[in-house]
Amino acid sequence: MPELRRDPITGRWVIVNKEAPFTPKDFEVVHDEFKGEENCPFCYGHEHMTPPEIEAIRPEGGAPNSPGWKVRVVPNKFPALKIEGELDKRGEGVYDKSRGIGAHEVIIDSPHHYKGLSELEEEEIQFVIDTYLSRSLDLRKDRRFRYILIFKNFGSIAGSSLEHGHSQLIALPMVPKNVREELKGAARYIGYHERCIFCDIISQERGNGERIIFQNRYFIAFCPLFGRFPFEVWIIPVNHNCDFGFMPQEEKPYLASILKQTMGRIKEVLDNPPYNYIIHTCPVNIIEMPGGYHWHIEIMPKLNRVAGFEWGSGFYVVQTPPEEAAKYLRKELSV
Amino acid sequence: MPELRRDPITGRWVIVNKEAPFTPKDFEVVHDEFKGEENCPFCYGHEHMTPPEIEAIRPEGGAPNSPGWKVRVVPNKFPALKIEGELDKRGEGVYDKSRGIGAHEVIIDSPHHYKGLSELEEEEIQFVIDTYLSRSLDLRKDRRFRYILIFKNFGSIAGSSLEHGHSQLIALPMVPKNVREELKGAARYIGYHERCIFCDIISQERGNGERIIFQNRYFIAFCPLFGRFPFEVWIIPVNHNCDFGFMPQEEKPYLASILKQTMGRIKEVLDNPPYNYIIHTCPVNIIEMPGGYHWHIEIMPKLNRVAGFEWGSGFYVVQTPPEEAAKYLRKELSV
Repeated sequence: MPELRRDPITGRWVIVNKEAPFTPKDFEVVHDEFKGEENCPFCYGHEHMTPPEIEAIRPEGGAPNSPGWKVRVVPNKFPALKIEGELDKRGEGVYDKSRGIGAHEVIIDSPHHYKGLSELEEEEIQFVIDTYLSRSLDLRKDRRFRYILIFKNFGSIAGSSLEHGHSQLIALPMVPKNVREELKGAARYIGYHERCIFCDIISQERGNGERIIFQNRYFIAFCPLFGRFPFEVWIIPVNHNCDFGFMPQEEKPYLASILKQTMGRIKEVLDNPPYNYIIHTCPVNIIEMPGGYHWHIEIMPKLNRVAGFEWGSGFYVVQTPPEEAAKYLRKELSV
Repeated sequence: MPELRRDPITGRWVIVNKEAPFTPKDFEVVHDEFKGEENCPFCYGHEHMTPPEIEAIRPEGGAPNSPGWKVRVVPNKFPALKIEGELDKRGEGVYDKSRGIGAHEVIIDSPHHYKGLSELEEEEIQFVIDTYLSRSLDLRKDRRFRYILIFKNFGSIAGSSLEHGHSQLIALPMVPKNVREELKGAARYIGYHERCIFCDIISQERGNGERIIFQNRYFIAFCPLFGRFPFEVWIIPVNHNCDFGFMPQEEKPYLASILKQTMGRIKEVLDNPPYNYIIHTCPVNIIEMPGGYHWHIEIMPKLNRVAGFEWGSGFYVVQTPPEEAAKYLRKELSV
């Protein structure tokens, strides 16, 4: 019998296949052919192939737009939104429109063309986190922006067109719908229980342990009971904090460490799958912030297709129960 | 400058690329290799390869599970949900669970292995619609069900594993999240304006005309201003009606006709793309139905990838403005 499970934050139901769970081998993992570094705009010496850099980490100094950087941030060459101008919100009958104001940046994770996040040294991953934080804090100074979305696509079926490891940042003039739903769900829970729902999830998961993959002093990595995708993993800080941008300094090395472990384990167990990860955090520059939000990273390996049923309903069919997925990712089970 | 547009029903924003719109040729359409009819469980003479039929249209009579049918309904061999038992909703700390009760049926559109919906005769499409209606009315007699989702996947990247044209039906014990959002949006609008938002959209679109592709006495087919996907098309009845299951008899031939036209035009202009279509209708067996819903079909050609940005935000980037898409689909523009 399949099991229906409800996401306690958004109210979404997922259908978990408990009778004939898929193992990692049951998914058809799509791999891209390597294109190589020759024409890669993100490699050392090719800095002229991108728009001029916004910022970079250069511990040993050096001129902007020259080699020697550890992480480099550039404007997206094909931005979804444009930085100049005012929103100019307006109605048109039943419809609402506005100009497409926003920022769209690319964060080049490292100079290494072939290294995924898990192959970087922990110190290098800390540079990436430092850059995420620095951009998040810088962009919120622009009062037009309401949300700063940081994410990473790996592999062409996950939407990435360049193989050199990179992340993206989009600053948006509205709070996105998905975030609003999470905020509302968290606010509803805190209104009733006077506790943060994410903190309650963390405490239940730590008490039970079966879905936890890694944990350290400040973070846990676990497969959420109600995840939409097989082998979905969340990394969440144990201490309550709604805003990724205000992550305490002392947590940073622990985040780098658990990210390296988790991404490495996903790569190993699932045969280097395409994936998306997204940092879920609270909005910026809004006057009334609903309570009870808690930032976290959602990692979604792209192992199957999303079809009519999912698009039509928001129901998802999860072919591997998260309890099983966690066992594979802890290497207690293998195929 | 890109344009931000808001879905007036759900509140979702989309980003429309107005500067360098994609033409149909700019999308990489994925085609599947033909597998042929030899091992096809949906062809005449292969009726034993499916579970026993639930119902079929046999204008000239004939035994169940034998050839001669026009449309045939069978249980899904790998159902996402199971029909027997009670829901048994229960809590587990912060989580909610239930048994995976539901129905999952396959509707074989016609006996023709190679014919897509648009290649069927209008009379044959009416048989498909008759079957959708009959299953919708039959399944709602089961009081455990709250929603009947009818959809169609075409092409492997749209989630279809069998090439013989078919639709699917899933009866769900809960109202799906996406439907609840649409209902809430419609109720909010009617609460304020005392009018149906879909009726207002129809009247604005008919007044303006630039996004309409086809129209007849009872239906319009148009590219919604706020569609999430390039070349997304909605088919909607002009007369207000929340429940697809109660479509008036006289509308049926007009629906068959506009479906054939629309699917044929999408196939022609977009080079036979993979697609999903979904019938959006109101829930069944619920006591308090919020007002202002209006059933319709959403057709989503699968032309591009959904990546981290979309998953993270619920924002979508639409590379072809719906006004342009409608021009291509009306054949006023070509490439």
